[in-house]
Amino acid sequence: MRNVLITGGAGFIGSNLADQLVRIGCNVRIFDNFSTGRGEFLETSNADVRRGDLLGDVDELRSAMAGIDTVFHLAANADVRDGWNNPDRDAYQNVIATLNVANAAAVEGVIDFVFSSTGSIYGEAEIFPTPENVAIPTQTSLYGASKIAAEGFLAAYAHAKKLRVTAFRFVSVLGPRYSHGHVIDFVRQLAKDPSKLHILGDGNQRKSYMHVEDCVRALIDIRSDSGFDVFNLGTPEFSTVNSSARWIASVMGLDPDITYSGGDRGWIGDNPLILLDVDKAKLAGWTTQRSIESSVKDTVKWILENDWIL
Amino acid sequence: MRNVLITGGAGFIGSNLADQLVRIGCNVRIFDNFSTGRGEFLETSNADVRRGDLLGDVDELRSAMAGIDTVFHLAANADVRDGWNNPDRDAYQNVIATLNVANAAAVEGVIDFVFSSTGSIYGEAEIFPTPENVAIPTQTSLYGASKIAAEGFLAAYAHAKKLRVTAFRFVSVLGPRYSHGHVIDFVRQLAKDPSKLHILGDGNQRKSYMHVEDCVRALIDIRSDSGFDVFNLGTPEFSTVNSSARWIASVMGLDPDITYSGGDRGWIGDNPLILLDVDKAKLAGWTTQRSIESSVKDTVKWILENDWIL
Repeated sequence: MRNVLITGGAGFIGSNLADQLVRIGCNVRIFDNFSTGRGEFLETSNADVRRGDLLGDVDELRSAMAGIDTVFHLAANADVRDGWNNPDRDAYQNVIATLNVANAAAVEGVIDFVFSSTGSIYGEAEIFPTPENVAIPTQTSLYGASKIAAEGFLAAYAHAKKLRVTAFRFVSVLGPRYSHGHVIDFVRQLAKDPSKLHILGDGNQRKSYMHVEDCVRALIDIRSDSGFDVFNLGTPEFSTVNSSARWIASVMGLDPDITYSGGDRGWIGDNPLILLDVDKAKLAGWTTQRSIESSVKDTVKWILENDWIL
Repeated sequence: MRNVLITGGAGFIGSNLADQLVRIGCNVRIFDNFSTGRGEFLETSNADVRRGDLLGDVDELRSAMAGIDTVFHLAANADVRDGWNNPDRDAYQNVIATLNVANAAAVEGVIDFVFSSTGSIYGEAEIFPTPENVAIPTQTSLYGASKIAAEGFLAAYAHAKKLRVTAFRFVSVLGPRYSHGHVIDFVRQLAKDPSKLHILGDGNQRKSYMHVEDCVRALIDIRSDSGFDVFNLGTPEFSTVNSSARWIASVMGLDPDITYSGGDRGWIGDNPLILLDVDKAKLAGWTTQRSIESSVKDTVKWILENDWIL
């Protein structure tokens, strides 16, 4: 791995990955439409930045693949909650866009294709922690459906020997440059009114999270041996939304009154429990180094130091 | 079930389904772009036929949903072999088109959504006969990837209580109006030169097939109890491509010399063995009534009587 392309490289995970790849001596090219990516995140990476859209700028995408040996395809719609307001969006931005990247990579002779999938593909899992090889899950969100769909198309590319694919099913990722999800929602609420916090659901949803440093290390270090392989990534623990709210308030020095929308899930397709079995990634030599509590607190500190993100 | 819409209703399975639904007293509407559907197949059905494309004519599709209680979504690209010449086609015709149908159905208050998936979603299965609840399979074709992708999006629709979805994973279907696959390929070769037959692969590929009468009965009789449910459909037996070639030649009264392209599969993504566990469909009261041999022979007879299809 020497010449790499990161789609979504101006985003939260992508820009952290870019920084680390530059640090270890890679030539980093970024392809991003800056719909949610930010120029501020690229000030440190010294990357070759190409502005382009994976759906609209297919020729530019193909040009950007020239000389690349490893593609990290991170660009995606990552807004799980809003799926039903735009029922086509996940299919285009997460499936068709992935096919465009895979096509361009295969035609240009890229070897390794690294894909950011999601733990959401397990829907309402029946086994916890959830391993990679569960029975075909019933999808509960358009987002999860779009990501397992993209995995399937990439597996077909691998089977046809057009690419070597490593897919990672993430839990939610936290850390510097984090810009959407419950932590920023809570900080935003508390910045507006420090006396109260409203939580979607009953606050007992149990979720695993992972620090972006741990995530990036996996993306760089773990590779499929052969055609297509998939690895869960997450901390081997979970926290409740209520615990997370307390950690966030404590970093901000606040003690808000908490109210709840009620129910055991925050929105249609939300999961009351997410905890992934990460033994397969551990066997590949990877392990998380940051706890959920330290990840949440680190995220809040970064948001407060970079309050333009609010 | 009284007012039904069949997408792809001018096709092989769709038109057989339309005939049977009319026979049992349903009002049948058909939405078809006639890319592979044929007007000849609709002469007997007395259906309300709307010509339209699921990708291009979304307004017409929505109009066609008015008053419908059950949608049978059969329209699809069904050419598994040719996927790599058009690597986007399965994604658009089988995923985006399915989302368009699901959107239109949900908005218009359709209750039941019946979806034609495929046994190809199991890729190279490790368990035979293959049950519905195997571990998440690794896709081996763009076609299989597109069908499991569509299943996932439909499951999300069901989870959000927008539709009740019954998905069927078919083996290959044979019978009157059959118009693509190895049987017609072999008849076509033998019609051109009765003395020889060329088989892709080594002829030992073992596949299950099903007669369209058996398929249609399942589509009409089996329904998901709740949100999303999926059923394998196929005969509980398999035949080799070589056996099938012998049956075809015998109906045609021929004894051709057979040559082989070699290898244990006919094309990239072909599977050496397909045999589905159909116990779940049996528990729902369904069973096949036609053997593979009788299905192959019935297909050849229909082709010979309708040789315009060649």
